[in-house]
This record gives sequence, C-alpha cells and structure tokens, in this order.
Amino acid sequence: MNYSVIFNTVKNVCLAEGLFLLLPVGIDLIYKEGSWKAYLISSGISILIWFILDRLFRNSSKSLKHTKDAYAIVSFSWIAISAIGALPFVISGDIPNYVDAFFETVSGFTTTGASILTNVEALTKANLFWRSFLHWFGGMGILVFIVALLGHSQDRASNILKAETPGHSGEKLLPKAKSSAAILYYIYLGLTVALILLLMLGKMPVYDSVCTALATAGTGGFGIKGDSLASYSPYIQWVVALFMLMFAVSFNIYYLLIVRKFKAIKENNELWWFLAIVGISTIVIAFSVYPMYNGVEETLRMSAFQVSTIISTTGFATTDFNAWPQLAKAILFMLMFIGGCMGSTAGGLKVSRLVVLVQSAKNGLKRSLSPRLMHGVRLNGRTLEIHAERSFLTYFTLYAGLTILTFLLISFEPFGFETNLSATVACFNNVGPGFGMVGPTGSYASYTAFSKIVLSISMLLGRLEIFPLLLMFIPSTWKKR
Amino acid sequence: MNYSVIFNTVKNVCLAEGLFLLLPVGIDLIYKEGSWKAYLISSGISILIWFILDRLFRNSSKSLKHTKDAYAIVSFSWIAISAIGALPFVISGDIPNYVDAFFETVSGFTTTGASILTNVEALTKANLFWRSFLHWFGGMGILVFIVALLGHSQDRASNILKAETPGHSGEKLLPKAKSSAAILYYIYLGLTVALILLLMLGKMPVYDSVCTALATAGTGGFGIKGDSLASYSPYIQWVVALFMLMFAVSFNIYYLLIVRKFKAIKENNELWWFLAIVGISTIVIAFSVYPMYNGVEETLRMSAFQVSTIISTTGFATTDFNAWPQLAKAILFMLMFIGGCMGSTAGGLKVSRLVVLVQSAKNGLKRSLSPRLMHGVRLNGRTLEIHAERSFLTYFTLYAGLTILTFLLISFEPFGFETNLSATVACFNNVGPGFGMVGPTGSYASYTAFSKIVLSISMLLGRLEIFPLLLMFIPSTWKKR
Repeated sequence: MNYSVIFNTVKNVCLAEGLFLLLPVGIDLIYKEGSWKAYLISSGISILIWFILDRLFRNSSKSLKHTKDAYAIVSFSWIAISAIGALPFVISGDIPNYVDAFFETVSGFTTTGASILTNVEALTKANLFWRSFLHWFGGMGILVFIVALLGHSQDRASNILKAETPGHSGEKLLPKAKSSAAILYYIYLGLTVALILLLMLGKMPVYDSVCTALATAGTGGFGIKGDSLASYSPYIQWVVALFMLMFAVSFNIYYLLIVRKFKAIKENNELWWFLAIVGISTIVIAFSVYPMYNGVEETLRMSAFQVSTIISTTGFATTDFNAWPQLAKAILFMLMFIGGCMGSTAGGLKVSRLVVLVQSAKNGLKRSLSPRLMHGVRLNGRTLEIHAERSFLTYFTLYAGLTILTFLLISFEPFGFETNLSATVACFNNVGPGFGMVGPTGSYASYTAFSKIVLSISMLLGRLEIFPLLLMFIPSTWKKR
Repeated sequence: MNYSVIFNTVKNVCLAEGLFLLLPVGIDLIYKEGSWKAYLISSGISILIWFILDRLFRNSSKSLKHTKDAYAIVSFSWIAISAIGALPFVISGDIPNYVDAFFETVSGFTTTGASILTNVEALTKANLFWRSFLHWFGGMGILVFIVALLGHSQDRASNILKAETPGHSGEKLLPKAKSSAAILYYIYLGLTVALILLLMLGKMPVYDSVCTALATAGTGGFGIKGDSLASYSPYIQWVVALFMLMFAVSFNIYYLLIVRKFKAIKENNELWWFLAIVGISTIVIAFSVYPMYNGVEETLRMSAFQVSTIISTTGFATTDFNAWPQLAKAILFMLMFIGGCMGSTAGGLKVSRLVVLVQSAKNGLKRSLSPRLMHGVRLNGRTLEIHAERSFLTYFTLYAGLTILTFLLISFEPFGFETNLSATVACFNNVGPGFGMVGPTGSYASYTAFSKIVLSISMLLGRLEIFPLLLMFIPSTWKKR
C-alpha cells in the first residue's frame, strides 16, 4: 500500500464533504430548527481531518500505479465519508446512537435507503435534506466527483473510476478521465434539475421537490414523509416512476443520444432486456394486484411504480407492497437481485450480468450435447472471450456467496426468515425496504448494533461491487510488495 | 432422436419395475392388509408396457451414438417409472389422487422424501415398504442397475451412466461400464445390509430396520412413523446419522479403500471439505440449540442427526427443527443447498461444486489485482482447465436460475415466503422437509396440483442434475439431425 498516494485523495473527499455539510446549514437558516450548529461542527471536523491529512501526506510525488491502491482509495473514502456524514445526526440529537446514524449514512451514500427511523417526519428539515443529499452524492460516485473537479494524472484517475463506478465497463466516454467524469456529472445534474422542475410543475413544494429529486437521482429512496410517496398526486408518482427508470439506465446511453450514435444504442442489449423485464413485471403484477385497487390507472400506477422503485433499487413506495399477494412479492424479490444497468446509479447484480449469465447457461446446455461448441456470449454488440465470461460467472459466485454469508451473520436475529432474508437482499443490492418487518411501512430499528454493522458493510460491498472493499478484508492485500 | 434405441432401454426399466412391484406383494402376504392386488395389477401393467415396447422396437440394430439419446433414455425412464410407480398408491386407495401419488413417487425415486401424507402410519405395510424401496432403487440410479445387470455395448453404457449418475465425474472405476456399475451396486448393497443388521442389533423390528435402511441408503427420508425417527433409541439415531453421512460420501472412496489406494483418498479434497462442513455446522448448531435439550449427549445427537440428515439430503428428523432458533435454521438452509459429495446417493449442489466455486471466487478476487494471474482451480488432485471451470460456473448459474424459476412458479400459493422458498429448495435439492408448513412435522398436502407437478419436475431436475431433463424442454433437442 502506498499510503501517501491513498490519503492524498482521501483528504480531498473529506474536504468536499466538509463543504457540502454547509448546505444543510443554509437549509436550517430558512426553517430555523436549530440544526445548523450540528452541521457547522461536523463541517469543521471534516475540514480539520482534511487539514491533518494534508499536513501528513503533503509532499507526495508518487503516482498511483497499483489497482490495489485505487481500491484502497475507494474503500477508505467511502468509510471516511460515512463515518463523518453520520456526525450531524448524532450531534443534532435526531439519531442519538452513533451506530444507528452510521447505518443511516451508509444507507444514504450507498443509495440503499434502508432506514432505522420509525418516524422520519420528526427529523428537522436540515437533517431530512442531508439524508436526501447523501443519495445524490453517493449515486454518481464520490470519487467521480473528485476526479471531475480536480482531475488527476491520466492513469490514476481512470483506475479510481474503474474501482468506484458501478459496473464501469472500461470504455471511456472521452480519452481524458476528467472529461468523462465531468460529462457524467453534467448529465446527472441536468436530469436532476429537470426532475425538480417537473415535480414543482406538479405543485409539489420546492423543498419536497428538491429532496425527492435528489433521492430519485441517486436511486436512493429516503423519503421525507412517513408514507414515502403515497400521499402525493398520481402525476408526481408517474413522474418519479419514470425518472427512477431513467436513472437506472446506463448514463452512456444519454451520452450516445447526445452525440447521436443511435446504432450503438440499438446494439446495447442490456437496455432492451431492462425495458422488457420492467414491462413484463409490471403487467404480471398489475393482474395480480388488480382486485386491491380502484380501476386500471391506479392498478397500473401502483404496479409500475413499485416495479420501477425495486428494479432501480430506489426504495420509495406508494403502497405497502408487503401486503401484496405472494406472486407479486416473489417478482419484486427477484427484481431486487437484478437491479439496474451498468454505469447507472442503480444497484443490484445489474442487467448486463444477467444477460451474460443467461447466455452462458444456455451455451452450457448446448455444450452438454456438443462439447466442442465454440459459441461465445454477446454483450452490447461484442462477443466476450472466455476469460471475460469467467469473470462474470465468478462475480456472480462471489455475489451469491456474500448474500449467503450476510444472511447467516444476521441470523442471530429472531425476526424470521422473510425479514432476515429480504433485509440481506435489500441491503446488499442497495434497494432499501424488504418484506416483513423491514417492509415499506417498517424499519431496521429493531436490529442489534452487530447486525446493523454487518448490513452496513453489506451495503458498501454492494455499492462498490464487492472487489474494492472485500480485498481490504484479505490479509495479503496489506503485505508489502 | 433415435426412438428405437431409446425405447429399447426404457422397456427394460419397465420390466425391472414390474418385477420389483412384486416385492410389496410378498410384504402384504405377511401382513395381510389387502394391498397385494394393487401391486399385482401395477406389476402387470408395467410388464405389459415392457411387452408392447418390446414388440414395437424389437429389431433395433442401431447403437447409441448421441448424448442427446442418452439424455432421452434417462429422462423417459425416470418419468415412466414414476408414472407407473404411483399406480399402487392409487389402486390401493391409500393415496386416491393420482397427482398426489405421482408427487409421492417422484419424491421417492429422486430420494427427496417430500410427502403429501399427513398421517403416514395409516398406510399399509406394503405401501410403506414400497415408499422406502423407491428411495433405494432411485438412490444409486435406475439405469446404473440396468447396466449392471444387462450390460451394453461399451460407449452406450458409459454415456447412460454419465447422464444419470449424480455428478458422474467421467472417471471409470473399471474399463467396462458394466463392471463399474456392478461394483457400485455391490458396495451399495453391502452397506445397506450392514445397516439393516446394525439396526436390528439395536432392537429395531425387522420390518422397520429394512424400511429405514432402504430410505437411509438412498438418502431419501420417507419414514414409516409420524414422528420420523424421533421415537427410536439414541443408539439407532446415532447409527442412522452416521450412515446418512456414509451414503453422502462418494462411492469411489469405498472403492479406493477396497483397492487400498489411500493416496487418492488423501487427495480427494471434496471428502475433507464435506467432513469439515459437517463438523463445524454440528458444533455451531449444538451451541445454538443447547438450551432446548437435556445435556450434552442429547444436544449433540440432535445437532449431528439434523446436520447429517440435511446435508446428505435425506430428510429424516428426530426433532422439529422448524422450531429451532433462527441461526440453526439458517445453517440448515445453507446445508440444503450444498448437499453431499459427487458420486454418492445424496442430492444438492454437491460439495465438489462448492470447492470449485469457492476457489474460483478466490482466484477472481486475486485476478482483480493481477489480471494476468494464471492460477487454476484444484479438485481432487487435478487442476481444472478454464473450459472445465466454466462448466462448473455455468452449472451453478443454471442451478440458481432454476431455483428462482421454481420459486416464482409456486408463488401463486398463499403460504408465505418461508414455506414456498424452503419447499423449492428442499425439493430441487432432494432434501424433503423444509421450514414453515413443509417443516418436519408438516407436509406438502396443501399445495395445488399445479405446484405439485412443478415441484415434481424440480425434484427430477435436481436428481438428474439438470441437463438430461432440461434439454427435453428445449425444442431444438427434438429436431431431426
């Protein structure tokens, strides 16, 4: 490990967070609920940490060479911002227990949206804004932000981006990592602003519009009301449902749209699979829940919204889907695993991986009859060679293994199968709400501190796509070369 | 498809079943409960089918060339014997509904042990014996039996064995398929007889000993008492626990013991993983359930028996493990997936595959740091090349996909998450009892006919290790070459 290189980036993350912690101070100046002190203190602490790290690792002329160091930058940055981001909740007294606040913050940054709060409306406006902002900041990636703003020497930055961006495919939008990161952020910002305006057009109050848009953009799911989005108008629910899907689509698609490369979009089979899964799930669920709602529009809206919120791993809700028939719940459970597209803000296994797994299984079947079949797997217009295919399969194995491990570790809790298993799946895939006690009307409050930490790690593993964080748990990573 | 080759083997399976159906006639002559007619009629039908098939496909001089045909032989044989084997239950009136009887028979042949009966003790002795015998016959493989008895031209037989034997590794014990199959059956028969004698030594009645030994040998799990093995003596429970494990170990190990190839046993890492998993699970569960039992011996016995019954995918029970603490249940749930060793009578994913998956995931992690790492996966003293490794990973993908599909298909049922998911896992992995309503004190009786058929297919897919049966569902398999 090259600590000076690592902490030279981690310090910038702390500085950025220190500055962003001033935003809720502004919110509190409007609503005057006395939370500004908590944010000012937290901001001070964050900037102090930047200052100390800056003094300690100032004159580093070394450059980032090893993937290992890029992984360490990402892991340390995410842990640091979560640890710091939890402070205002504790200091303001809204979430007095630090482990609870840490869980809530990790859930925010990883855009999970799992909450330990039983009554969100009791929080100050500043705290509610901070929760939503965590989603937005974590959504596109904290280090993507740093790279977009500060840049880095060529290979450093692209290594970091690869380690952080969900499913970064290695294709660069532009040759310079800084420009690529900046474009991603422009698209992200543009879509977020568009959503805010559309929500305000639907007569949603400005504060609500901003918080909802931030949480939607990050596919996070923290709401500012006890019933999530259930009490808003059908128009608002349709708009949010649509945008959740839009943020779960690869941002490359928007870039390709801008530069008018329509053929590449056509070849992007991930996109078409994603839309097909959304469409079919919505229709099947609509039939299954039709007797519970009034008329076709409401049924379709409930079905589409819940499919959209789960497959995009956002986690808002407009109805208590825990009370849905078993079939509808089973479909939602499957969608939790699938998640959004690579290079979006959504979590889950990702549709690309599903596309590869399904083709790989199909070829496997065919090969059992004709062992010499050389058929490769096709993804987004390319044929994967066997080593790449193996990487996908191995990722899936790790993914399944860690799901099982997390489930085992929280099985000390007496909440039963449905709650524990869906909590595991909802956290690891960054969805948020599950079924049973952790359903959309419930919370993670009753879990022990141990389980909250396990689930926090699980959320981070899910958001960072396993490798960067998992390698930190392996002793050989820490050995000197 | 070469139907004359296929039905020339399927007919022999029907003949064998027709003869075996006479065994319960003998049992009924002793106990005089009037079931003999049902078995005589069923036997007659089975032999009639043999006769018809024999006339229709008599003069076939063609030999088995394509894997496709071997798969068809296995699929058709298993479906045929299940369809015929269900008859006596219906005719005798003990299970009046044919779908129920079919489910019970498939559950028997696939050594699953899932039952639709709510009161087994109401069955006649002949019916109970037939249930246990199904396990024994299905355990080592129906076609292994045919090959051992009748033999076949060289490549025909080994193709069939490959298609049927759970995890047939392709290594032949002896150059001739007939001799290999015969040796497997000698070992199987020897161990079964040893178990019968040991049970009788523990003062178990002869009838009980035979039935219990047949169900243990096949790692099936149909009991002849309502409380499975709970009311038998601790000695008997320990003996059965030990033998369930022995039948879940690769039969190659016993052959290697006989021919004194100890080095090959030492290199069989599957065996050592299996024993380690059993040991660790037993200890952890023992700590978890200690407060529920009287003293160390009872706790250890309960823990060891349940671990043994689940990992061997037998499905007996000596206690209602559905009432165990969440942690113990979660461990059992994991063991359901793992299952026994390749080349045993146990089901599940198989320990070999777990060994490969874990190493593959570990190498994947390492490769994320050093992409050029050439590390291969080692299994039983050999290094797998990448195509073989991919096959393992692909199998796992199919396995996970089919688990999800089965779960979705039975999610029309209103029994909740725990019941439906564990029913899926318990059937597909040929375990038998699950949790909730399908726990050791419950049954599959309340499922609809549709779900019973889905679960029957799932049991067959699990027992035949997916490929042979799944290919029958693919249209291109049926195309003429």
